[in-house]
Amino acid sequence: MSEKTALTPATHTTPPAAFSHGVKKGNLLQVAGQVGFLPAAEGRPPTPAGPTLREQTLQTLANVRAVLEEGGATWDDAMMIRVYLTDVGHFAEMNEIYNAYFAEQGLKEAPAARTTVYVGLPKGLLIEIDALAVLG
Amino acid sequence: MSEKTALTPATHTTPPAAFSHGVKKGNLLQVAGQVGFLPAAEGRPPTPAGPTLREQTLQTLANVRAVLEEGGATWDDAMMIRVYLTDVGHFAEMNEIYNAYFAEQGLKEAPAARTTVYVGLPKGLLIEIDALAVLG
Amino acid sequence: MSEKTALTPATHTTPPAAFSHGVKKGNLLQVAGQVGFLPAAEGRPPTPAGPTLREQTLQTLANVRAVLEEGGATWDDAMMIRVYLTDVGHFAEMNEIYNAYFAEQGLKEAPAARTTVYVGLPKGLLIEIDALAVLG
Repeated sequence: MSEKTALTPATHTTPPAAFSHGVKKGNLLQVAGQVGFLPAAEGRPPTPAGPTLREQTLQTLANVRAVLEEGGATWDDAMMIRVYLTDVGHFAEMNEIYNAYFAEQGLKEAPAARTTVYVGLPKGLLIEIDALAVLG
Repeated sequence: MSEKTALTPATHTTPPAAFSHGVKKGNLLQVAGQVGFLPAAEGRPPTPAGPTLREQTLQTLANVRAVLEEGGATWDDAMMIRVYLTDVGHFAEMNEIYNAYFAEQGLKEAPAARTTVYVGLPKGLLIEIDALAVLG
Repeated sequence: MSEKTALTPATHTTPPAAFSHGVKKGNLLQVAGQVGFLPAAEGRPPTPAGPTLREQTLQTLANVRAVLEEGGATWDDAMMIRVYLTDVGHFAEMNEIYNAYFAEQGLKEAPAARTTVYVGLPKGLLIEIDALAVLG
């Protein structure tokens, strides 16, 4: 019997509804859909890191990583990364940013699986990412 | 070695293809994408609870819950809830309905993680939800 | 402590970014989003099995199955199958193909759960599928 615990990095903005940025139960860790919001600041509404795909992708990956770390996990524990883009034309650039980012993360195990699809997102957001991890 | 078992609430309409409304294996329970169909009625094709986002969201959540319960789980066991909407303009209203619904569920543990994206759905459907749960 | 290992069927084209076609850790196996690419051929870029939904669906399912098998799993181990289509009008035909395909797979356990949504995909691709499996 293990309890489900919420993972809420101190930097994260409050979720806009009754969900957790991440949860952990047993050896499973699920990261909720993260977007490119900057760290929360008192009195400022959730604000994207910038208008560009690069800025938002890097901030989104940082936000996913923060949730993983809050649960004692690293990118090496990630099994699946789901990438939601709004524009098929962003695929190549996102991959470049993604590859460069992960090259710097010093992964010791195989990269996670990934699915990328093209959906609608709230105005101003170009990317959303969630992740499933298995610890230990 | 544990077997995978199908979870088919008596109220549910027959899936439109060779898939299960839910499956359970070991301590993992996966709920298939649920929409706002009313309980199955002899001779009636699958019918949404109503045309509004509120009606469909509440019926969809009830349908997800029925699958969880069929597998001996509750919302407290849910790790991830995936919400598919058809219209970005529905986000705020869906969150209100979602929050009020979960406030009434008496969760004892952290709320599940969640990802919401905007996709196409068959005509007349405004929302689809699936869920991953870990029991025990 | 179990290691995460990459699952890379010999027939598969190289992923377009730093992700694995599948990963396995403990008893969990995640298949990345597969599309209808034919087996890799020296000097040929990734090429869909054909322009039709039927050709692409069958090749995509074969590609998912190859990743499952690379990890020692079968369709019977699949808990969740996520189907991404580009056109709501393809739902009925995809279901026919899906049903006929699985009827031939000789499943011994319950079919997996499934979610189908309609998204954008890169030009020429009509379907993408990923899967989560639990072994043993």
